[in-house]
Amino acid sequence: MARSPPGPAPPTRGCVPAPPPHRLRALAHAWLDEDAPWPDAAAAAAGDTATRAELLSKAGGDPGGVLAGVPFAEAVFGVSGCRVTWRVAEGAALPPGRAVVAEVEGPAAGVLAGERVALNILGRCSGVASMAARAVGVARARGWAGVVAGTRKTTPGFRLAEKYALGVGGADPHRGGLGGLTMLKDNHRALAAAAGGFEQMILGVRRAGGFTRRLEVECSSAEEALAAARAGADIVLLDNLAPQELHAAAAQVKAAHPRVMVEASGGIVLETLPQFLGPHIDVVSMGCLTHSAPALDFALRVLEP
Amino acid sequence: MARSPPGPAPPTRGCVPAPPPHRLRALAHAWLDEDAPWPDAAAAAAGDTATRAELLSKAGGDPGGVLAGVPFAEAVFGVSGCRVTWRVAEGAALPPGRAVVAEVEGPAAGVLAGERVALNILGRCSGVASMAARAVGVARARGWAGVVAGTRKTTPGFRLAEKYALGVGGADPHRGGLGGLTMLKDNHRALAAAAGGFEQMILGVRRAGGFTRRLEVECSSAEEALAAARAGADIVLLDNLAPQELHAAAAQVKAAHPRVMVEASGGIVLETLPQFLGPHIDVVSMGCLTHSAPALDFALRVLEP
Amino acid sequence: MARSPPGPAPPTRGCVPAPPPHRLRALAHAWLDEDAPWPDAAAAAAGDTATRAELLSKAGGDPGGVLAGVPFAEAVFGVSGCRVTWRVAEGAALPPGRAVVAEVEGPAAGVLAGERVALNILGRCSGVASMAARAVGVARARGWAGVVAGTRKTTPGFRLAEKYALGVGGADPHRGGLGGLTMLKDNHRALAAAAGGFEQMILGVRRAGGFTRRLEVECSSAEEALAAARAGADIVLLDNLAPQELHAAAAQVKAAHPRVMVEASGGIVLETLPQFLGPHIDVVSMGCLTHSAPALDFALRVLEP
Amino acid sequence: MARSPPGPAPPTRGCVPAPPPHRLRALAHAWLDEDAPWPDAAAAAAGDTATRAELLSKAGGDPGGVLAGVPFAEAVFGVSGCRVTWRVAEGAALPPGRAVVAEVEGPAAGVLAGERVALNILGRCSGVASMAARAVGVARARGWAGVVAGTRKTTPGFRLAEKYALGVGGADPHRGGLGGLTMLKDNHRALAAAAGGFEQMILGVRRAGGFTRRLEVECSSAEEALAAARAGADIVLLDNLAPQELHAAAAQVKAAHPRVMVEASGGIVLETLPQFLGPHIDVVSMGCLTHSAPALDFALRVLEP
Amino acid sequence: MARSPPGPAPPTRGCVPAPPPHRLRALAHAWLDEDAPWPDAAAAAAGDTATRAELLSKAGGDPGGVLAGVPFAEAVFGVSGCRVTWRVAEGAALPPGRAVVAEVEGPAAGVLAGERVALNILGRCSGVASMAARAVGVARARGWAGVVAGTRKTTPGFRLAEKYALGVGGADPHRGGLGGLTMLKDNHRALAAAAGGFEQMILGVRRAGGFTRRLEVECSSAEEALAAARAGADIVLLDNLAPQELHAAAAQVKAAHPRVMVEASGGIVLETLPQFLGPHIDVVSMGCLTHSAPALDFALRVLEP
Amino acid sequence: MARSPPGPAPPTRGCVPAPPPHRLRALAHAWLDEDAPWPDAAAAAAGDTATRAELLSKAGGDPGGVLAGVPFAEAVFGVSGCRVTWRVAEGAALPPGRAVVAEVEGPAAGVLAGERVALNILGRCSGVASMAARAVGVARARGWAGVVAGTRKTTPGFRLAEKYALGVGGADPHRGGLGGLTMLKDNHRALAAAAGGFEQMILGVRRAGGFTRRLEVECSSAEEALAAARAGADIVLLDNLAPQELHAAAAQVKAAHPRVMVEASGGIVLETLPQFLGPHIDVVSMGCLTHSAPALDFALRVLEP
Repeated sequence: MARSPPGPAPPTRGCVPAPPPHRLRALAHAWLDEDAPWPDAAAAAAGDTATRAELLSKAGGDPGGVLAGVPFAEAVFGVSGCRVTWRVAEGAALPPGRAVVAEVEGPAAGVLAGERVALNILGRCSGVASMAARAVGVARARGWAGVVAGTRKTTPGFRLAEKYALGVGGADPHRGGLGGLTMLKDNHRALAAAAGGFEQMILGVRRAGGFTRRLEVECSSAEEALAAARAGADIVLLDNLAPQELHAAAAQVKAAHPRVMVEASGGIVLETLPQFLGPHIDVVSMGCLTHSAPALDFALRVLEP
Repeated sequence: MARSPPGPAPPTRGCVPAPPPHRLRALAHAWLDEDAPWPDAAAAAAGDTATRAELLSKAGGDPGGVLAGVPFAEAVFGVSGCRVTWRVAEGAALPPGRAVVAEVEGPAAGVLAGERVALNILGRCSGVASMAARAVGVARARGWAGVVAGTRKTTPGFRLAEKYALGVGGADPHRGGLGGLTMLKDNHRALAAAAGGFEQMILGVRRAGGFTRRLEVECSSAEEALAAARAGADIVLLDNLAPQELHAAAAQVKAAHPRVMVEASGGIVLETLPQFLGPHIDVVSMGCLTHSAPALDFALRVLEP
Repeated sequence: MARSPPGPAPPTRGCVPAPPPHRLRALAHAWLDEDAPWPDAAAAAAGDTATRAELLSKAGGDPGGVLAGVPFAEAVFGVSGCRVTWRVAEGAALPPGRAVVAEVEGPAAGVLAGERVALNILGRCSGVASMAARAVGVARARGWAGVVAGTRKTTPGFRLAEKYALGVGGADPHRGGLGGLTMLKDNHRALAAAAGGFEQMILGVRRAGGFTRRLEVECSSAEEALAAARAGADIVLLDNLAPQELHAAAAQVKAAHPRVMVEASGGIVLETLPQFLGPHIDVVSMGCLTHSAPALDFALRVLEP
Repeated sequence: MARSPPGPAPPTRGCVPAPPPHRLRALAHAWLDEDAPWPDAAAAAAGDTATRAELLSKAGGDPGGVLAGVPFAEAVFGVSGCRVTWRVAEGAALPPGRAVVAEVEGPAAGVLAGERVALNILGRCSGVASMAARAVGVARARGWAGVVAGTRKTTPGFRLAEKYALGVGGADPHRGGLGGLTMLKDNHRALAAAAGGFEQMILGVRRAGGFTRRLEVECSSAEEALAAARAGADIVLLDNLAPQELHAAAAQVKAAHPRVMVEASGGIVLETLPQFLGPHIDVVSMGCLTHSAPALDFALRVLEP
Repeated sequence: MARSPPGPAPPTRGCVPAPPPHRLRALAHAWLDEDAPWPDAAAAAAGDTATRAELLSKAGGDPGGVLAGVPFAEAVFGVSGCRVTWRVAEGAALPPGRAVVAEVEGPAAGVLAGERVALNILGRCSGVASMAARAVGVARARGWAGVVAGTRKTTPGFRLAEKYALGVGGADPHRGGLGGLTMLKDNHRALAAAAGGFEQMILGVRRAGGFTRRLEVECSSAEEALAAARAGADIVLLDNLAPQELHAAAAQVKAAHPRVMVEASGGIVLETLPQFLGPHIDVVSMGCLTHSAPALDFALRVLEP
Repeated sequence: MARSPPGPAPPTRGCVPAPPPHRLRALAHAWLDEDAPWPDAAAAAAGDTATRAELLSKAGGDPGGVLAGVPFAEAVFGVSGCRVTWRVAEGAALPPGRAVVAEVEGPAAGVLAGERVALNILGRCSGVASMAARAVGVARARGWAGVVAGTRKTTPGFRLAEKYALGVGGADPHRGGLGGLTMLKDNHRALAAAAGGFEQMILGVRRAGGFTRRLEVECSSAEEALAAARAGADIVLLDNLAPQELHAAAAQVKAAHPRVMVEASGGIVLETLPQFLGPHIDVVSMGCLTHSAPALDFALRVLEP
């Protein structure tokens, strides 16, 4: 099922930009603060003895199980005074069964201080990356070469990590937030009267959003999509259309505006994904990749001296 | 299946302390910053017209579907200059189908600025609360009156909300983080040689943790549990024991130390929960309540003027 | 001098998105902290008497003198407990001579605490907006309808205000920072060997940057520009070309890739701007709009009771 | 004067958990910012010459004079680019007279930038630790083996250091703040009508506070204490009772509820402490240990090259 | 004992600048965060009922007992959603015995959330102000009209409040920190060789510190003081001189440099203060005013509805 | 044109205190956050290869072109993991034409992450320092030895750097902000009625500002200046006087109060500066040095491996 050109290129699994060092450090600080605002007698009891620990994956082997979160976990252990040596590469399949993913070295109290935060990062990021990889796998198995993408339906306080994990799994993180890609959605449409109607709003937003940003418009019918494309949308988002209706609308848009990208969304999950793949669909975005990906299981085991 | 006294009392669903106002405001700021570091042409296009919107639950009706996250969502809309009137109470069952949960009023750009962050909060908190309520329901249906609890396996940056949501669903949030309840886990045990052995470590930690904190010790056998109780643990955590072994160990601990609380944990999920309920178990803690609860679906619909 | 379609639309003067309220408040706090980490005996001596003051523009009348910075100044006075009523609209021409731009009301100490920070904001923002408006005026006077844009050459700590001021003056703010529009510049080119050559780097970055972001590539010749366009650049930046060479290169790019946008930059100032305007140029970006715009003169005059 | 079991164990002097590294660094930054928001010509004049300095205790020798604050002072000098070698151990008695406590090495400007903040830390922490040690000494001299504890009456912005210093001196820091140990005090009692009475409030708070937290209830008579213990308090705080009344009430509580801990408080100072020690008292908490401990005198002396 | 002109004027008791609103709010947030990083079941149990409470002084009547801390306490209750009405003015003598100082109104949970932090502020600030007032009283009783001042020996995290409290008590807060008044102390002297000697250092620092700042030089003899005054010091600090030696040195300085201010310091306490007062001394600075002032006792009593 | 003693000494070019390390790091973090809240695919594509780059000045040779900003740029590259070796010293004249100012070494992505922020710092700081040096040059060429100073008219968020740059260029940074030097300006004068008149206000502020701070009073006539000096001003600011009037007023002040410093200000620019120099003027302050100094041009060129 070849996609009509000139659709966008999906990320290569694992080739995804991580946040810059200053952001990673700030997040590590904030997350450690959240976990430990007060001294912990248990960590202190362990003292500052030089300690080695194994970071273990416990739930790999599952097809699509992918390691993700390395730069974030490393930043956390860095702030806690520890060094991490990875045995499995970011984006690689997790080995079956219980497997050593990394080694952590540092003072005992530091290892224990970073442990839970790092495991929470890896568990969630790997969960998101694995579900993203599975979705991409479903798409590729159907011969569809388009982009599987996430949404802004991320966990408050953890977005940078979840967006990054999408990329690790081969999905597109979609926009980072408001102020990246400009999007006009149904709620903007409902407010368009004051702007002189929705097409007027599109024109205004194209100007105000600037030439550096793409403009995406959410539509719920072929008519709306054609109007949006005419008014200058770079991407039309066909939201909540039944598959048949979706593919027909996408075909109409592509026929009239071959360079406009078409994104499908609306409650799409792994099981229903195949119905939304089609030659005129460039992007399928799935909120479930971040809001409902179960975490993978990781553990840290201190090696007795 | 009566639990042996004097076990702890579980929270009453919905009667759970929210963070103080200064924390809610700080979190709302941080989460809005994460979503919108830059101006958004789309929100700006909507202007400052006084606007009303409905906050809708889309996935209720499911037994155990519970609204959670109200104080956090309200703080976000507050920072965005909006006012929220709730139609469904925190902790109440979500009505079947598509239902209005709240009304939001404020300037159009403010409503749009708060929208996604507030929905992400409600979706995740309600997901956690609903799963917690389901777990409590399973336990109560088996006649077990003990405490279903969460763990520290929360999403970095969102812990306060997830812990709170556990309480809304009738589960115990467990400790807030390091520095609350003192816990000695397997990794501390592995490091105990330097402290003169694990029992010595327990004694030291009891002193260093102070009289205001309980002390919990993770054990992987009846022997370890009995030793921990003897050394002064207030709670023994029987981790990863097979159900039969678990109940036998718990009985032994209770026989020898009737006031020591027994907590069971280790990969327990809704389906396997019944096997871990028993007369000598005071607490069952389940990481899945936070790390794998799928989010519920909420939406915001601006009402045309 | 008509520009070849389908070039981007420039912002309408004054119709520009301001940062959301949470960002404005955070900036106001940071800037007031910078100015007053310690108590000020002089402001305190003025006490809390309800006070009115006039905010005056002293350097208007100059063609292109434009008021800018209103939301930022208002946020500062808001944090200081004052209310501002504007007499001149954001983006409007400043009246000739000494003119009342706004009235400020609040406790005397609050008016004095916000005064200098607010004046610094208005002076700089209006300076940038005025220079932007002048540049746009030069372009329009030559019949060129393209986009005059700023750059990332802004003052550290004040970027949001300077970018916003560009828009107020009718220029495009260009990307907000790294992580908005993806740009490959000469320094990336110098590092491309490790990525398998520059075209390979372009392909990789298109994938990694995602479908939501445009990709711009800096080029120093027609050959580089054609190669970049072929490899998938949405925008080619022709940097530091002599005007004649620039227009020839732009024409070649447009002939081969009519939908690729062409941006010209490289030390362009108001005086030389006309040479860089041309039918195949979509965007002219000028660092001087932010890094060398002299501030306009504003003052605050407390009205004696 | 043996205490009735099973009372809590007091901390061993000097064996006290310090805050984790991320907290220490954040505090060091905040405290240095407070002292030096602006450049200092005097420190700058000293330049970056490698410099050694002695950190001197000037007021030791006094029985009970104890060094405290090491991890905080070290964090401050660390942020200023200096290294500290301690000659006296945390919690050790300060030598008589003027004594070298540590050596500091680093660039001259860094030594001078950290000097005052570090001295302020050591002076106050050692003051608190010394007074705590004196109080513990008074108790031990009377044969009382219970816990001397601090309160939440600490200096805003410096609590972590003062709580830590209590532990260094052999006292229990008591709860870290709201959200650690749950406490119902007189003001909660005054508000209990809305909750259906105070015993109902106790029951509600036991559930809402969770099984991980102890519950303490402030009482002003034996009757209140017995009622609180009956309702499930883990600790009863007998506040402001005259010594005779206190010991009688404590005896009644212990007779009826041998496992409930009894804490005495209310304006107790070193001189009156002996009257509040008794066989049925587990904890004596003293606000004066933090709110009225005079600082010890430390100085820094740069060694001429 | 008239002081030689033109000495500095001491602050009028109670007429002292408080930090600007943005700083007060930031401090209130930081201090509440420190006290309550986590939800508190006890405060939550009190709910949001509109509540009134009395803020009581318990230790007044003592000559020199002065209320201080009003703007800081008010900021804390403001962040907690409460309103305070003061019955005793900042800087006024505290009435004898138990006296109502203010009324607090707000939601019950807000009153309880702000209580401890506000009491800690008032207790410490009033302690510092009272000791400052006592010191000023001692000086005035001896007919000395100079300035009693504090030092930088304040509690990390609480300096703005302690400095402010000094002013409330009629003492001069001295410099806010590094970067206010420029001071060369013994440690700078020890490092002066690299700068070409101490007089050269003084000259350099006068230039680098700028014309807006005074320059003070610490001296330990009349010779050093005369040299410092000659080199351009505005203030000479005679540190740790015996009273007789101090007054002789001060007289020498004043004779040669009548406009140079003379400050005396070095372990001066209330009892020894009179010995350091003299006609040639302009300022006596006392670290004990902040580092060893015992807190005053305040309490909050919720009024039953 | 000798200045009457005892005027203040101007800073020696380049001998100026930089902010302490904790402030530099905090600013570097804030500025990098501003530029890159999100991951950047372009920087990531460059990877972590060890990279060298040249930092080039492009606009030197101009008399008065001075390098400034070194500690700030170094802090930014430090946070990005890079090391800088300077080839031109802070405060030195920039070599003519294109010249290598420094070498930067670090991982490719780190070099690219720090590039723009560091260039923006150097461009602006050098612009300010160069204009300051030019102003000082004008003054010295006329034989005037007084102080050229800046003002508080700096860019919000960047003040510490601009004030520092003034010093690098040989100008006095003037006060750091409110809470440094106490200043009474026209707006205070307008509010003086409530304080019992302006002279009363001066007296009150002298007391409240303390002996450590100088007091400057803005005046618009010789009469006001004489009154201010009589009331105790250390510095009188003659604002917006015509040159002839200015010099006459200054002479009157100096005749009556030889130790009072006289500052002239009010729209003074390089061209008009000579008219404001005179034997009775100690300080000329010029807002244009910060609010209208065009940035200098710097670039970073990655060296191909």
